[in-house]
Amino acid sequence: MIYFDNSATTKPFKEVLDSFVTVSSEYYGNPSSLHSMGGQAERLLSQARDQVSKLLTVKPSEIYFTSGGTEGNNLAIKGSALLHKNKGRHLITSSVEHPSVKSAMEQLEQEGFEITYLPVNEFGRISVADLEKSIRNETILISIMMVNNEVGTIQPIKEIGDLLKKYPTILFHVDAVQGIGKIPLPLNKYRIDLCSISGHKFHGLKGTGALFIREGVRLAPLFSGGNQERKIRSGTENVAGAVAMAKALRMTLTKAETGLERMRNIRSMLRKGLTEIDGVQIHTPIENSAPHILNFSIKGIKSEVFIHSLEQKGIVVSTTSACSSKKKSPSKTLLEMGVSETLAESAIRVSLSFENSMEEANTVLAAIRESATQLRKVMK
Amino acid sequence: MIYFDNSATTKPFKEVLDSFVTVSSEYYGNPSSLHSMGGQAERLLSQARDQVSKLLTVKPSEIYFTSGGTEGNNLAIKGSALLHKNKGRHLITSSVEHPSVKSAMEQLEQEGFEITYLPVNEFGRISVADLEKSIRNETILISIMMVNNEVGTIQPIKEIGDLLKKYPTILFHVDAVQGIGKIPLPLNKYRIDLCSISGHKFHGLKGTGALFIREGVRLAPLFSGGNQERKIRSGTENVAGAVAMAKALRMTLTKAETGLERMRNIRSMLRKGLTEIDGVQIHTPIENSAPHILNFSIKGIKSEVFIHSLEQKGIVVSTTSACSSKKKSPSKTLLEMGVSETLAESAIRVSLSFENSMEEANTVLAAIRESATQLRKVMK
Repeated sequence: MIYFDNSATTKPFKEVLDSFVTVSSEYYGNPSSLHSMGGQAERLLSQARDQVSKLLTVKPSEIYFTSGGTEGNNLAIKGSALLHKNKGRHLITSSVEHPSVKSAMEQLEQEGFEITYLPVNEFGRISVADLEKSIRNETILISIMMVNNEVGTIQPIKEIGDLLKKYPTILFHVDAVQGIGKIPLPLNKYRIDLCSISGHKFHGLKGTGALFIREGVRLAPLFSGGNQERKIRSGTENVAGAVAMAKALRMTLTKAETGLERMRNIRSMLRKGLTEIDGVQIHTPIENSAPHILNFSIKGIKSEVFIHSLEQKGIVVSTTSACSSKKKSPSKTLLEMGVSETLAESAIRVSLSFENSMEEANTVLAAIRESATQLRKVMK
Repeated sequence: MIYFDNSATTKPFKEVLDSFVTVSSEYYGNPSSLHSMGGQAERLLSQARDQVSKLLTVKPSEIYFTSGGTEGNNLAIKGSALLHKNKGRHLITSSVEHPSVKSAMEQLEQEGFEITYLPVNEFGRISVADLEKSIRNETILISIMMVNNEVGTIQPIKEIGDLLKKYPTILFHVDAVQGIGKIPLPLNKYRIDLCSISGHKFHGLKGTGALFIREGVRLAPLFSGGNQERKIRSGTENVAGAVAMAKALRMTLTKAETGLERMRNIRSMLRKGLTEIDGVQIHTPIENSAPHILNFSIKGIKSEVFIHSLEQKGIVVSTTSACSSKKKSPSKTLLEMGVSETLAESAIRVSLSFENSMEEANTVLAAIRESATQLRKVMK
């Protein structure tokens, strides 16, 4: 089986699972307990926090462990809105965000907040000029994703941060769930206040994640309680999950050193090969796109039909984001990019990890070619 | 080492961890994905939901997986308040709830809700008559814990439910984190709308939990996004965590069949032995208390000093709840029960699991006796 759906989720590294098991079985104390078992657990948590903070170039006190990307995005957005609503009730985001950002914004709209959804161009990118024009006195938060989960477009995060240096009271949240490990994100250099990551997107475990909250930035908690995570995220800490995530992030960033080049080569090969297949249209832009995602349509063949055909050949790819795939509606991102509904209904997303090889990619490309030919014949 | 701090957290069962590892490594697909790996993961999640629902005597569609007790309590309370605030803004709870309930209520107070905190008697119990008196037309939710986490008092959950049959529009939330597996909670028979449990309190994993939401009850989500868990709790499901929790719950309820009797005997022995030690005052009531918690003070010896002395003898107990232990303030529950501040500062909580033996308890009792004598000598 060839797994090319790494944007949906990744296979946990064996070392990550081993760490999880060791911590869960041998250091199971509650980190809030005063006794030595609590102390041991607290030290492990603190080490995990140190590791994650170093890898993200920030301070340990700026890392808050969460249960994943959706929690991080909701906490950043709703936590900001709730705490700063007296300063203003306007938020800015893009029209191609992950559902966890989009729905959080929609929920705030119901509570009386105003949201600006910035359009994107044919490459899926927002314009920094548009963003600046939409800023008001009441704007309290801007939330823009680092890398689009459906087509891989990289948003101008550095440029937005540079612009926002003129607007010191506006918080800037970046959903880095798809970008981390694939694209550099020097949080120590960029003007970013909040940044969410999710463990299971980089070979960590589901149910783990972290939110970077820059020192001095205040949020209302979604979980109040025992005041864990400096009162921002109460609840007994998932120590083993945090240790596992720190390890997964370290391993991923280490693998990226040599893996990114290979990943880019694999994607170039796939892109070139796909353009040679009759009726293929590639949606992922050449410029400003992350190296692991390639989104394309094969005209006239519905996504579902195509992925099932590939699956019979032992190849796993996806129609769109996993979160949206059961809605059976075409990709919102593609429609926003101006792709026709018909073409969007044929969209396929291939997403790589550093574990994938050129050999696998060759097999996948051959299978795509074969499936396209077979399905065309059937449909004629 | 003898671990008698099972109310803080428990050691995960080996079988639970094994299941977690198998699911994480072999069935790591995203349950929202359309391909067969997604389908496999979704089936495992669905089986876990079926198991948990059967064990709790409710429908599978009434079980929502969470990241733990704090999330469940916050979701139940804030989710109700947010959705039903136009019906009324009054909530009722007790003065001895877990911090995750208490702080959620306090956060709502800041948002303009009114909260009634019911007092407790010397046994830590609220009065159903008091509760009825505090009900107003604007009351939307009542949240009462099943078993107090510090002293083990069982609240009159059935009686409250019976009373609330007269008030069909008021939601009833029960924090069952400390009670589940120790005290029967027939959700199919009691008039309860919302009930939170936490995996790591019954030998499951940290970062796992569930919220029962009775059919027809509506809540606003804390996490909006990809619409997982029927839109109430978005975010890629922690399938392995859910499977692990289902297994832990099943194993715990099976062990309870024979284990509860042994647990009660152990606690009776401890209670009897402790009363024979000079200066010991037991706070856990004889009637209406869960079998696994025993809270007592040894006059004149500060809790911290005492637990460190026991720890040197290889015995792990706690001062109060883990969530509160770093505040160094005396137990809120004890103060509310009318225990003096001085005595509350000497409180020790012993908490058992079905894995603990009478032999261990004898060792613990002897150690308590010895530590009490030693520390008294030092202090004179």
